[in-house]
Amino acid sequence: MERVAIIGASMTQFGQREGEWIADLLAEAGEECLEDAGVGADDVDHLYVSNMASGEFEGQTGVPNALAHDLNAMPAYTQRVDQTSSSGGAGIYAAWQSVASGASDMTLLVGGEKMTHRSTGEATDVIASLTHPVEYKTGVTLPSFAGLTARHYLERFDAPRESLAKVAVKNHKNGVDNPNAQFQKEIDMETALESPIVADPLRLYDFCPITDGSAALMLCPESVAEEYADEYVVISGIDGATDTHVVHEREDPTVMGGVVESGKGAYEMSGYGPEDIDVAELHDMFTILEFLQMEGLGFAEQGEAWQLVEEGYTERDTGELPINTSGGLKSKGHPLGASGVAQGVEIYEQLVGEAGPRQVDADVGLCCNVGGFGNCVITTIMEAAQ
Amino acid sequence: MERVAIIGASMTQFGQREGEWIADLLAEAGEECLEDAGVGADDVDHLYVSNMASGEFEGQTGVPNALAHDLNAMPAYTQRVDQTSSSGGAGIYAAWQSVASGASDMTLLVGGEKMTHRSTGEATDVIASLTHPVEYKTGVTLPSFAGLTARHYLERFDAPRESLAKVAVKNHKNGVDNPNAQFQKEIDMETALESPIVADPLRLYDFCPITDGSAALMLCPESVAEEYADEYVVISGIDGATDTHVVHEREDPTVMGGVVESGKGAYEMSGYGPEDIDVAELHDMFTILEFLQMEGLGFAEQGEAWQLVEEGYTERDTGELPINTSGGLKSKGHPLGASGVAQGVEIYEQLVGEAGPRQVDADVGLCCNVGGFGNCVITTIMEAAQ
Repeated sequence: MERVAIIGASMTQFGQREGEWIADLLAEAGEECLEDAGVGADDVDHLYVSNMASGEFEGQTGVPNALAHDLNAMPAYTQRVDQTSSSGGAGIYAAWQSVASGASDMTLLVGGEKMTHRSTGEATDVIASLTHPVEYKTGVTLPSFAGLTARHYLERFDAPRESLAKVAVKNHKNGVDNPNAQFQKEIDMETALESPIVADPLRLYDFCPITDGSAALMLCPESVAEEYADEYVVISGIDGATDTHVVHEREDPTVMGGVVESGKGAYEMSGYGPEDIDVAELHDMFTILEFLQMEGLGFAEQGEAWQLVEEGYTERDTGELPINTSGGLKSKGHPLGASGVAQGVEIYEQLVGEAGPRQVDADVGLCCNVGGFGNCVITTIMEAAQ
Repeated sequence: MERVAIIGASMTQFGQREGEWIADLLAEAGEECLEDAGVGADDVDHLYVSNMASGEFEGQTGVPNALAHDLNAMPAYTQRVDQTSSSGGAGIYAAWQSVASGASDMTLLVGGEKMTHRSTGEATDVIASLTHPVEYKTGVTLPSFAGLTARHYLERFDAPRESLAKVAVKNHKNGVDNPNAQFQKEIDMETALESPIVADPLRLYDFCPITDGSAALMLCPESVAEEYADEYVVISGIDGATDTHVVHEREDPTVMGGVVESGKGAYEMSGYGPEDIDVAELHDMFTILEFLQMEGLGFAEQGEAWQLVEEGYTERDTGELPINTSGGLKSKGHPLGASGVAQGVEIYEQLVGEAGPRQVDADVGLCCNVGGFGNCVITTIMEAAQ
């Protein structure tokens, strides 16, 4: 079967986008991606929109149809992909399937979310609704799970509290060089460690913010890619997997089954293993998740990811395996439907050498996009085309 | 490329499902479909949920994860497919792509919606939000478009008002033999013609109801189908297409571009033409839409579908081309995310000879699922495996 390529990428300014609505954000990323790929709207066969909750946040549904209209891409087929906070990764998977199945020779994927016009409480309510009612209706939301898991991890593996703060400090440092990141400022260990407690032992700087933004990727068969671009990226492996929807039913709270299974599938499909990955974007919605994904994906043994972080193994400019060169969700921001797509944008830019001051030396990259508290996870492995 | 087969189907009772929520409905159809197909939950690779608005209707998101959990299908990959009122057809397309791309060897698609616990006004608000703000914020909702289009059609093509009522009468008659239909009662012409005006010239019986319900299909490669079933169905052609999101920008209000384009794609892929179709499920959310789809799909010339209906061409037991043998959305009901899947269930049952008292003689069938007022349409052509 012919491989699926990525020939263009775009990402809008993440942050507070006042006076705009979801369709504006999607159209902005979509137009930039068409331009970046050198593809006309007429040539788009399928158009996917990764978005979790435009209806809940804005009272607006049918946004894929609005986007097809705004880009003047009719009669391109369009559809919304929702897999909660992993909608973006699910969008990459849907777009990959559309091309790999032969249904589309040119697929534009745009992910976006508009959230900041709602209060933190309102946004939290919408996000909490993705968990099982037995959990969120008793007040156990995603940050609570993160706090419980972090405490367990630190105690069980004898990890210092500082190791979590180092994830935040690293990702903020990377975000400084990302002009589209919501926060382009460094923080020091003291700031992270003394910020207000949210879900003990996790503090404010262990959490990603609420964000508006969008991002896009253009996918096509490799034979078509060669017509459009000298340098492009190929999706070598991709898979998605669920874990129990009720989080407390999991056997080991430090093992994210969806990460392990989707990673296994993506590695197998690509022929690569953890040792072949040169750069990775992990879903650091909470700092603790960066450890759990490093371990689930085989970058570290169970209980040892914190040591690698302490040793600088995941630093951008000096580490063996730079993680979250984009700034991650932590400093780049987390517009739900956009985040997984933006992970793909960062890996694409790293692999084609367009990451500017964030550039690392990489031939193979990986993204891991986590829905809920690992309820469903999509892992994608990409490589620079040879 | 290997063909994609359907090896099982299920549909729950459509109507008012008090005391249940969306996850219950999805699990019911999902379990029945697993049983119908003789497939274990362990064997499901991908699980798609067609659902437009569980968040808006019930304050609940993440329902695909809930379904994977309820069916004990972990670590199957899961994702929600939303294409407004054509979410079900979009689900068939997504499920087809998952199999045709090689990503999944066994895909369960479950479509569902829980709506009747909300008032008609609230449900209408949610549905209206799928249109462009320039329309719904000035009060032009889908029923308004239907009324305007029906008036134009009747006047322009010199069609009698009675021809629309005949669609309702026919579909109600078919629904009597569908034990899962919301309305299992015949209506006469007088009842249809004298029901209260909703959007002149359309009256109450020109509109589908608000409904709870779910439906499911099991898809796999044809080589796998042969292991599970003696009789199965193959998807011969499938395509989706958009029209302008702003309805008033269309050149001819009686031509549904999305129907025409998706039909063209599905015919081309299948090698069949309109003359080869033996049975069809069309999206009769409003009676006028049955005419427009008949014309857009080439079953009738423009402006002439009403004559075929008058002549009995689309009657179940005596017509050349039975349309909406299931009862259609009109009498079966229209739980948004389920409707397109249920269309597929009806065609599957017709082609494998399991339609009971509704059975017609058919080798090739077609479903047309319309999102919005034709903003995005998916057409699927199926045939009995030989």
